[in-house]
Amino acid sequence: MTGRLYGLGLGPGDPELLTLKAARLLDAVPVVAYFAKQGSPSNARAIIADRLRPGVIELPLHYPVTTEIPRADPRYRDALDAFHDAAAADIAAHLEAGRDVAVASEGDALFYGSYMHLHVRLAHRFPTEVVPGITAMSGAWALAGLPIAQGDDVLTVLQGTLDEDALTARLRGTEAAIIMKLGRNLPRVRAALARAGRLDAAFYAERVGTPAQRVLRLVDRDEAPAPYFSLILVPGWAR
Amino acid sequence: MTGRLYGLGLGPGDPELLTLKAARLLDAVPVVAYFAKQGSPSNARAIIADRLRPGVIELPLHYPVTTEIPRADPRYRDALDAFHDAAAADIAAHLEAGRDVAVASEGDALFYGSYMHLHVRLAHRFPTEVVPGITAMSGAWALAGLPIAQGDDVLTVLQGTLDEDALTARLRGTEAAIIMKLGRNLPRVRAALARAGRLDAAFYAERVGTPAQRVLRLVDRDEAPAPYFSLILVPGWAR
Ligand SMILES: C[S@@+](CC[C@H](N)C(=O)[O-])C[C@H]1O[C@@H](n2cnc3c(N)ncnc32)[C@H](O)[C@@H]1O
Ligand SMILES: C[S@@+](CC[C@H](N)C(=O)[O-])C[C@H]1O[C@@H](n2cnc3c(N)ncnc32)[C@H](O)[C@@H]1O
Repeated sequence: MTGRLYGLGLGPGDPELLTLKAARLLDAVPVVAYFAKQGSPSNARAIIADRLRPGVIELPLHYPVTTEIPRADPRYRDALDAFHDAAAADIAAHLEAGRDVAVASEGDALFYGSYMHLHVRLAHRFPTEVVPGITAMSGAWALAGLPIAQGDDVLTVLQGTLDEDALTARLRGTEAAIIMKLGRNLPRVRAALARAGRLDAAFYAERVGTPAQRVLRLVDRDEAPAPYFSLILVPGWAR
Repeated sequence: MTGRLYGLGLGPGDPELLTLKAARLLDAVPVVAYFAKQGSPSNARAIIADRLRPGVIELPLHYPVTTEIPRADPRYRDALDAFHDAAAADIAAHLEAGRDVAVASEGDALFYGSYMHLHVRLAHRFPTEVVPGITAMSGAWALAGLPIAQGDDVLTVLQGTLDEDALTARLRGTEAAIIMKLGRNLPRVRAALARAGRLDAAFYAERVGTPAQRVLRLVDRDEAPAPYFSLILVPGWAR
């Protein structure tokens, strides 16, 4: 009998935004895996730190250091592929030994989440169940108290890594928008919002679900680079 | 001292997909409100039926019957506005009497949810907190085990009420898509997916989170009209 793989969404950061199902499974599985950057504490682990039982086997999956390789370089892709292969093999070893493994994932595991790379490698080999989680965007519009979309509104989810012309065109052609992965892309995202006439409507949310969380109108935010855990909301409702 | 308004997301249907926070608040508030169609049991209430304490005040909000008025008719809008005004007034009466009120909402309350109509009428008058919920789309892609979007993928959320040309153009211009509000719109949605070359990639999910839930490839689904609680997923990942 092999173990069972669980892809567990943890929500954006507040431990109370776990689902009852994710909490129950975390209390039951013998192995909890999570991604972490080399040398940094894992954000996913931080969400469940108070819930990890003594004796549970923790399996941190440390991303390789890729900062010196440009993202477009094929070696970047190769390094990540090799990392995901090795992480999947580590998990498979536990599953083959009959131990259930929960991969604890920030937000929703299948929505732009690293868990997807494990899922495509393991779900056809082992019994697998995905438990949906609160996405960071849901956490952000709840914190802002912002109705994001209604009626026939089109809602478009964009990544700040897109180029400025693409972002501008997308923002012109939608009622509501979410822009994730801001970081050093924030100035370009701001320019695209201005060109699309949506800058005044935009909200900026940072570190949602943690004690450091904040949300404010984007026009009131300074020019400093954004942290990785930040996103922009453009509500459709107001139109 | 007035009461506090909570907009509580309940998730798509499985009571275990409530967040710990929503469960805690439901156990604490004296008044629980929810929307319901005239003459039908409330879907939101069904999700929390086993969690309602004896003695809790239930406040069902019954939609007016509007089936005989065309959606484009201004009287349709007027009837809904009057209904939302009256529902907000009923809730305000409890809040003014010092009682906290939780509006229990399917999925996420601020994502195409009726709660938004109460929020815009009440949040500036009373202390208000929104608790995000698992959206129906997250529930659907988890059930399907379908990585929905990764990397720079654009994800577009569409309503089946859009016309066929608009749907086709939107589907041509996005990596991942969600199409909600299917019902009698399903044949038109299918035609748009075919014209955009995305029919083979599409999954159909119905009544997610209930015992009647199912998910299958859209090409394997028959031509019968879709229930209200159904949606389509087009994953970006595979591209
Ligand atoms: C790789 S994606 C993961 C998304 C996640 N799986 C979800 O369901 O929201 C990372 C991006 O999500 C957003 N994000 C994740 N957590 C966040 C938080 N707590 N506050 C604000 N943004 C967050 C940021 O835009 C970040 O760049
Ligand atoms: C008015 S919107 C409400 C969306 C909800 N607030 C959410 O966060 O998902 C109603 C639409 O959501 C989708 N939906 C809601 N619950 C669902 C379920 N349990 N299964 C499948 N689709 C569902 C259907 O497309 C339906 O037409």
